Amino acid sequence: MTTKKLWDKGYAVDAEVEDFTVGTDYLLDMQLVRYDCLASIAHARMLGRIGILKPKEVERLVHGLNHIIDLWKNGKFTISKEQEDVHTAIENRLTDSLGDLGKKIHTGRSRNDQVLTALRLYYKDNLKECIALSKGFAAAINGFSAEYGGIKLPGYTHMRKAMPSSIGLWAGAFTDSIQDNIYLLESTLRLVDQSPLGTGAGYGMPLKLDRESTAKELGFSKVQDNPIYVQLSRGKFESTILHVLSQAMLDINRMASDLILFSMPEFGYFEIPSKFTTGSSIMPQKKNPDVLELLRAKYHVVVSYEMQVKGISGNLITGYNRDMQLTKQPVMAGFAVTEQSLRIAAHLFKGLKASKSNCAMGLTDDVYATQRAYDLVKKGVPFRDAYKEVSKKYAGKK
Amino acid sequence: MTTKKLWDKGYAVDAEVEDFTVGTDYLLDMQLVRYDCLASIAHARMLGRIGILKPKEVERLVHGLNHIIDLWKNGKFTISKEQEDVHTAIENRLTDSLGDLGKKIHTGRSRNDQVLTALRLYYKDNLKECIALSKGFAAAINGFSAEYGGIKLPGYTHMRKAMPSSIGLWAGAFTDSIQDNIYLLESTLRLVDQSPLGTGAGYGMPLKLDRESTAKELGFSKVQDNPIYVQLSRGKFESTILHVLSQAMLDINRMASDLILFSMPEFGYFEIPSKFTTGSSIMPQKKNPDVLELLRAKYHVVVSYEMQVKGISGNLITGYNRDMQLTKQPVMAGFAVTEQSLRIAAHLFKGLKASKSNCAMGLTDDVYATQRAYDLVKKGVPFRDAYKEVSKKYAGKK
Amino acid sequence: MTTKKLWDKGYAVDAEVEDFTVGTDYLLDMQLVRYDCLASIAHARMLGRIGILKPKEVERLVHGLNHIIDLWKNGKFTISKEQEDVHTAIENRLTDSLGDLGKKIHTGRSRNDQVLTALRLYYKDNLKECIALSKGFAAAINGFSAEYGGIKLPGYTHMRKAMPSSIGLWAGAFTDSIQDNIYLLESTLRLVDQSPLGTGAGYGMPLKLDRESTAKELGFSKVQDNPIYVQLSRGKFESTILHVLSQAMLDINRMASDLILFSMPEFGYFEIPSKFTTGSSIMPQKKNPDVLELLRAKYHVVVSYEMQVKGISGNLITGYNRDMQLTKQPVMAGFAVTEQSLRIAAHLFKGLKASKSNCAMGLTDDVYATQRAYDLVKKGVPFRDAYKEVSKKYAGKK
Amino acid sequence: MTTKKLWDKGYAVDAEVEDFTVGTDYLLDMQLVRYDCLASIAHARMLGRIGILKPKEVERLVHGLNHIIDLWKNGKFTISKEQEDVHTAIENRLTDSLGDLGKKIHTGRSRNDQVLTALRLYYKDNLKECIALSKGFAAAINGFSAEYGGIKLPGYTHMRKAMPSSIGLWAGAFTDSIQDNIYLLESTLRLVDQSPLGTGAGYGMPLKLDRESTAKELGFSKVQDNPIYVQLSRGKFESTILHVLSQAMLDINRMASDLILFSMPEFGYFEIPSKFTTGSSIMPQKKNPDVLELLRAKYHVVVSYEMQVKGISGNLITGYNRDMQLTKQPVMAGFAVTEQSLRIAAHLFKGLKASKSNCAMGLTDDVYATQRAYDLVKKGVPFRDAYKEVSKKYAGKK
Repeated sequence: MTTKKLWDKGYAVDAEVEDFTVGTDYLLDMQLVRYDCLASIAHARMLGRIGILKPKEVERLVHGLNHIIDLWKNGKFTISKEQEDVHTAIENRLTDSLGDLGKKIHTGRSRNDQVLTALRLYYKDNLKECIALSKGFAAAINGFSAEYGGIKLPGYTHMRKAMPSSIGLWAGAFTDSIQDNIYLLESTLRLVDQSPLGTGAGYGMPLKLDRESTAKELGFSKVQDNPIYVQLSRGKFESTILHVLSQAMLDINRMASDLILFSMPEFGYFEIPSKFTTGSSIMPQKKNPDVLELLRAKYHVVVSYEMQVKGISGNLITGYNRDMQLTKQPVMAGFAVTEQSLRIAAHLFKGLKASKSNCAMGLTDDVYATQRAYDLVKKGVPFRDAYKEVSKKYAGKK
Repeated sequence: MTTKKLWDKGYAVDAEVEDFTVGTDYLLDMQLVRYDCLASIAHARMLGRIGILKPKEVERLVHGLNHIIDLWKNGKFTISKEQEDVHTAIENRLTDSLGDLGKKIHTGRSRNDQVLTALRLYYKDNLKECIALSKGFAAAINGFSAEYGGIKLPGYTHMRKAMPSSIGLWAGAFTDSIQDNIYLLESTLRLVDQSPLGTGAGYGMPLKLDRESTAKELGFSKVQDNPIYVQLSRGKFESTILHVLSQAMLDINRMASDLILFSMPEFGYFEIPSKFTTGSSIMPQKKNPDVLELLRAKYHVVVSYEMQVKGISGNLITGYNRDMQLTKQPVMAGFAVTEQSLRIAAHLFKGLKASKSNCAMGLTDDVYATQRAYDLVKKGVPFRDAYKEVSKKYAGKK
Repeated sequence: MTTKKLWDKGYAVDAEVEDFTVGTDYLLDMQLVRYDCLASIAHARMLGRIGILKPKEVERLVHGLNHIIDLWKNGKFTISKEQEDVHTAIENRLTDSLGDLGKKIHTGRSRNDQVLTALRLYYKDNLKECIALSKGFAAAINGFSAEYGGIKLPGYTHMRKAMPSSIGLWAGAFTDSIQDNIYLLESTLRLVDQSPLGTGAGYGMPLKLDRESTAKELGFSKVQDNPIYVQLSRGKFESTILHVLSQAMLDINRMASDLILFSMPEFGYFEIPSKFTTGSSIMPQKKNPDVLELLRAKYHVVVSYEMQVKGISGNLITGYNRDMQLTKQPVMAGFAVTEQSLRIAAHLFKGLKASKSNCAMGLTDDVYATQRAYDLVKKGVPFRDAYKEVSKKYAGKK
Repeated sequence: MTTKKLWDKGYAVDAEVEDFTVGTDYLLDMQLVRYDCLASIAHARMLGRIGILKPKEVERLVHGLNHIIDLWKNGKFTISKEQEDVHTAIENRLTDSLGDLGKKIHTGRSRNDQVLTALRLYYKDNLKECIALSKGFAAAINGFSAEYGGIKLPGYTHMRKAMPSSIGLWAGAFTDSIQDNIYLLESTLRLVDQSPLGTGAGYGMPLKLDRESTAKELGFSKVQDNPIYVQLSRGKFESTILHVLSQAMLDINRMASDLILFSMPEFGYFEIPSKFTTGSSIMPQKKNPDVLELLRAKYHVVVSYEMQVKGISGNLITGYNRDMQLTKQPVMAGFAVTEQSLRIAAHLFKGLKASKSNCAMGLTDDVYATQRAYDLVKKGVPFRDAYKEVSKKYAGKK
């Protein structure tokens, strides 16, 4: 198997240094195999159209790349650490099977725009997946609300009983929030839906490429014209994605905070399905809401990924800097955490129960104080005076 | 002057505690005076329409509130620390001038939805200001590019000369990025353009209010229906605003990084206008790019504000928690920093110069290596081989 | 009043740019007046000893500087925005009263090492204040524990009742943690206790200064020898301080989280003193734990300050960069927030109560499950089997 | 192979949920095998001393645990995902080989204090490794300085030439900073050097254990007495470690920033060894400082890990919360990144060169302006006037 680096100049590279520079890219990049092949196919066809490759060559390259996609689908495509990344691995394999022709696929392209093209396709698919999962999560909440929505329970402010609320109102807050998350995901999808293919290393190519056609073939809604902006937008697109993911996670964090609290036996408003709880190695009586605690914590994990990208991106001059390679991992991890969390949260709502009797017990007299003040208002008392009147009742209490 | 708190129950509040809870709200809230009055006017009119207030009462309240706006415009409206916030200060003043009628303005409203309504109006205006300033910044860059855009200079990757670029290409990267920032600002404007007025303390009001009409009068494009979501969206809207501001600041950070480096006498590609530089107290020869250094640093300041809001918002149950009060300061500070930076950056571009001769000197032979490889490609050499051929020339060099 | 900048070269400085570069330094620096005067006194005396100044000159400078300290103590020293910072304001005033002699104080010194010296003295005093406040906080907790420590209540894990605990054990966790905070504060105090005076702008001075003697006079335990390291340690010292402050705030955050939860009427284990609660503008029955909520939130505020410094400090070459000026505000704000929070928290514990009866009610049967398993262990049953036996009892329950 | 969870109660656990809760613990925990065995050995011996286990039982357990250490050393110990973590894997294996006796090892212990004990031992070893690596890094810098330290070059402030400096002064700044890092690492080592073993799930054990003896056997310098503090210190210790690691990384970040800039051919002060550079896939002339760029970026990675822990730790009540499990990964990753970076950085300094001729060319006339002003000072001119005099020379220049 060929393991030549694309930029190999022949001097020895120390193994420890290689470990350091490659990092986990060769593992992460397994998620990019299909996207890189698709981009290469589009690129090869375009090279054919502009006369750099002959029709026969295009055909053989496309066939070879499709074959790699098939291998990958069947779990037979691997990237070795020596190959550094998916782009080298694919070019090596093409050269193994097609000889010199395999080398030609790199004409009119740099690893820079290759990486960015594969990542953009990956982002687009994953943003769509997050939208679908958000819809699924909202549907699960709606299903729960259809069964338990009518139950009344106290609404809290400052973690103190405030006014009457209902399971339906509570659930609706989250589905409304999810709608706004979907809006943010779709806005972000539109932002990143720009084709970087053909911008080379950030200063264009000394060849006249047909960027419109590759963008169209790959499903991008527009060409990202300025090659320096292509590089400058790395970090910006990634942190925007992570911000939006963090907001999906924030809803889950707040929802989990409610459920952990109000499923305490001291309240008992909610009942967490058994399979979302775990036991203790020492306390035989325990059923702990571990899944909810982890969902709560994972918000902070995604936020830290966003910060990582924002830290890495600052104080750099324009043009590619290798620092940017390190933004790949946090974005991929951010998608993985968010997608898994959305799935788990939807799953949880399918088994979640609300207890009518416990909620009713929670609706103690003080929850109706505001209502009582407004009864006086309806009789003509100014609200501030009605408030004073009703508040006397609670003066001695905590 | 009346300084009664809206929730005053009569027991002594320790001065140190008051200092702690009020914080700087009474200062920050000076930015909200007009917005809170406008919201109160809309609220009073709606109370008139639904029969809670008589037409004469509405008229007097509207007059009183407009008078407060006038006072504020003339620098004659103040908020004392004892009043805690703008809402109390306004209600106090209304009560001073209108007596019992002043108290009635609080009917059908909580300080919670009052705060949120004033903030949303403030956010909308400031987002619009950021859009206008972004356009102004792009125009300043275009002006600079019109004069110097044709100058060729080396493009860098990894902080090493890479390929030929031009001032125009460089400037265009930033204007394209600013276009995407404007897109993000507009998306965020649409997100926050929801009226929270009428949701009370987060669980609705025991009165039938006409929320559609107040939303319309205040220029909101829709009513934010679910009162729990109104509370839940605090933190989400604020961090989304700060994320977007941070991206405007990131462009400025990258632009400043370029200008600081390439205005070093060792390069001399750019010349910073004198008034954007400062001297040293000890070194007589210095003109330092302080303004650019501060612009660079302020990206991190805005990012930390975003983190502050994201940290505060996590692990809280739904319903209002006082923690959320602390999100007001970072958002206001974020707007202030970003707006000032956009202004300064635009200002700077009006005096910025590029040096044709220095840029030309930078265009050394190695910048054309890729071009040379592609010349071979055009003669039929596969790119990989052309690359090897050309690279021999540079083998012994750094 | 003289308002000449130390580096003034005579060209016009735009007002907007000045606003931008000065920022809030002229306000923040009011906290540094005394420190800067003390450092100047030590510097003047040293200049006398090495023969740069005559004894009479030293005497007059020392007298002038002491006079400025007196003015400041009496609220009569101000720094105008045009003066930019405390160092210019003091030198201007000295020059006003002493003429040319006033100018000589800057011999052998740069604003860089002046700023750093004043800040280090400020840090040392504030770290000591934090240590004293931490001790006061621990004493307040101990006072509370002396009265209520014997009360038993349930200990929780995963927010579920776990095993028996006591108020004393709970309080002791915090005093132990505060001991470790004091250890961290003292370690940090030792770290920053290095004199930067005499390192100029970061590359030493072309004069032979007696740095040991100024360090000694100012109470530094050592000279920070390498002038480049003096600059490099800016950001490092600041973020270390903020990290340690964030840990003091973390304890307060966790303590507040406990108190907010367990003072809910649903538990009633703790009772928050009235003056630490506030009411609602709409709900007459409410007493909200606002002070605790704000204490909880302020942890995140301090963490964001630490991040701000860490963001600003990265990706800069060695030697002073103006970016570093922006680290002043977050450190000062971090001290202010932490010191106020420690004071408020200590204050709160003086009025905090624990309810014996409510705690007793919380000690339901399941809290003793582990104890029961260990009773079997004492009879020879392996723990894992005892656990299984006892857990049967809770199998059907939530 | 046994794969029973320690808390297994018999109901089905959904595979997706298991994936979610286990996360990567079963992989991370491979680093804890030896530490957990050592803690179990100490625990078993203590159980023998207090009469819970018979001498023969202790002997067999110790033998079994030592055998597991041997297996692990030889790469023959694995943890399956079903086993969740190292603690279950070890207990399962003990039970497989020793039957009922294997179960007894869990007497007087909870998974909580087990995890914490293993982690503390791991932290201590890794902090010591960081200290050793820091010393190695300083030694490498000293080696470089011994060869090139005498070379003069310009010192920069605001990225502008300021005053004369030298390679030795520059290198010395880093070795001084590393000394302070070692001080911080040692302070942190003392902080975490407290034995949590014997505190159970956070509320002590219903058995009288001899905690002093296990602490001593495991090499802890003291017992962490309060069991609630043991839990509370999780997050605090971890974030303190990560803060200190971030400071070691900050030095590397700043050093890398210098080297990337000053090895640009435009300066040429430094020469990066070839094996620390990589090429471009498209530009034949390039040798890019990728290793330095990655070192620079990894500072932000470690900072984000610290933020992750700080975010996760806030707003939680005392007592264990599952959220805390997620602090394991960032600390381990923080150690891995920092240790690798320290190794690579030391390695780099062994091949780093400084160019005497390029440095000399950098020492242009303006670098001596301050020197010239001080020459006037020595002739009796007040510094401020000397400064004005010398600055005239540079008035017209950039």
